[in-house]
Amino acid sequence: MSGEAHLAMGGGEEFDAIRRMLSTWGAKARGIGDDAAVLEVPRGEKLVVSTDAAVEDVHFKRPWLSAMEIGARAASAALSDLAAMAATPRGLLLAVGLPADWHGDLEDIARGVGMSADYSGCPIIGGNLSASHVLSLTITVLGSTSQPLHRNGARPGDVIFVTGQLGGPRAALAAFTNGTRPAPAHRMRFASPKARLRESYWLAARGARAAIDISDGLVADAEHIALASGVSIEIDDRAVPLMDGVGIADALASGEEYELLVAMPQASVVDVRGFAGEFGIPLTAIGVVTTVGDRPVTTNGTRATAPRGHDHLA
Amino acid sequence: MSGEAHLAMGGGEEFDAIRRMLSTWGAKARGIGDDAAVLEVPRGEKLVVSTDAAVEDVHFKRPWLSAMEIGARAASAALSDLAAMAATPRGLLLAVGLPADWHGDLEDIARGVGMSADYSGCPIIGGNLSASHVLSLTITVLGSTSQPLHRNGARPGDVIFVTGQLGGPRAALAAFTNGTRPAPAHRMRFASPKARLRESYWLAARGARAAIDISDGLVADAEHIALASGVSIEIDDRAVPLMDGVGIADALASGEEYELLVAMPQASVVDVRGFAGEFGIPLTAIGVVTTVGDRPVTTNGTRATAPRGHDHLA
Repeated sequence: MSGEAHLAMGGGEEFDAIRRMLSTWGAKARGIGDDAAVLEVPRGEKLVVSTDAAVEDVHFKRPWLSAMEIGARAASAALSDLAAMAATPRGLLLAVGLPADWHGDLEDIARGVGMSADYSGCPIIGGNLSASHVLSLTITVLGSTSQPLHRNGARPGDVIFVTGQLGGPRAALAAFTNGTRPAPAHRMRFASPKARLRESYWLAARGARAAIDISDGLVADAEHIALASGVSIEIDDRAVPLMDGVGIADALASGEEYELLVAMPQASVVDVRGFAGEFGIPLTAIGVVTTVGDRPVTTNGTRATAPRGHDHLA
Repeated sequence: MSGEAHLAMGGGEEFDAIRRMLSTWGAKARGIGDDAAVLEVPRGEKLVVSTDAAVEDVHFKRPWLSAMEIGARAASAALSDLAAMAATPRGLLLAVGLPADWHGDLEDIARGVGMSADYSGCPIIGGNLSASHVLSLTITVLGSTSQPLHRNGARPGDVIFVTGQLGGPRAALAAFTNGTRPAPAHRMRFASPKARLRESYWLAARGARAAIDISDGLVADAEHIALASGVSIEIDDRAVPLMDGVGIADALASGEEYELLVAMPQASVVDVRGFAGEFGIPLTAIGVVTTVGDRPVTTNGTRATAPRGHDHLA
């Protein structure tokens, strides 16, 4: 937190709030106190940076999640962009827009951000605190790598793999919006996603050519790879790994999964069993890359209608 | 803007909105299209990064500023943190929280951000777009330098300098909140601050030991330097450069100035005339650094009461 942190609490309250967050983070927070944070990028590596926002009533509603989950989920979502690029996290900056009725939750939000930062080995290097009418967490993550993965590297003949099992976040969201209780496993996928960083390095080390994290939905994100790479992608519906209780249409559309979608060269031998043993989640071949056709993405030969995977609340 | 950009507009509208912003920026926007932006930090330089938010009804009210001014002001405020560290801007990321009734203003907001980025020679390398109930711009800036300026380098005997003339933003804010028209010169200082980057390099090249940008107010920010450096600072009221129509008490408390407050070693010969000739604004010696006393900052021997320089709206 820099001294620029602005919070309409009057008096010393804004600094107290910052101090409470810092004490929550302990040694995870580094080098905070100047106008900007200073970071050394390892020689020969490129810097990778992304910013992502989680806004109350847009990305979540208050009754659905604990304050700690809100913080942890927002940080994981941001860190997931580093996983998509196969970058090592170097620092996280947290900008909080804090309404008055959330003041008492700030430490738990900070604790959640700290948990995800810890899980990914990422120091917290700065931030900003501002009054707001809705809770918003805007998180910027910095990473570094000598060889970033991009979206545009998929080539005809590549095989498309996905990590984990899909559909949980969409099922949880449907239950929440219907006023029912989501299944615990679905809720966990919505409330506590993990950035697939180690999985990403594993895949990059085995020759991954293109990657994206599934935030908009499998079909929508496959389309991003296809369009960026100038190829088409054929997904085999029957191969898509589903969470229990989820149908294929929902799995294709489910957003905010933060699983990885990766194009691997055909020649490479991908040890899916070794992957599952190491990370405790499946790695599944679900399709192939072809030369560019009429449609960027097909599922069993029919055009994927690219349903809005990510059903934002208005 | 990454593909993660989230905006509850439905259909292709969110991508259209991003495309409109990108076309506004033209060549200023670089390398956008992956999950994260990739940046090379020059060898031997450290990365400097800061995040800053501008929120409607907290930092400004809609009738006070044009959409372009809102964008330009938010970007200048963020870039000002790089000036405080004497870092060269390398990239800016813009996260917008956009309410429905601001949709028509997005291009002008983007244009304003682009103007300030241009002024500071900073490419726009990424961002995020989200629905929101209030307009918020959270801007992250990255810079690099081999020798960052910090707050903690002031030493007894140093001379405290300030750039520009103070008090304009506070006077404009007072007029706005009273429902009167601010003087044009005051309004300009509030609506169109500039990041003092070139000024900062000039000062750093002449041995500046510590610096901060004035966002909380002269006294409050002098206190940040004093506390970080373990010294006291004596400010001579009579030397503080005032804008026309502003009194000393308001000048000491005026926030969001984005002028620089710098400690220079006594020995250094600072050519204030040369500075004014080069940059068109004054550089003024306003105080001295002493060994730490009872009070971090005094003005003419009386304790500066550190008025909340930055009167946020609730």
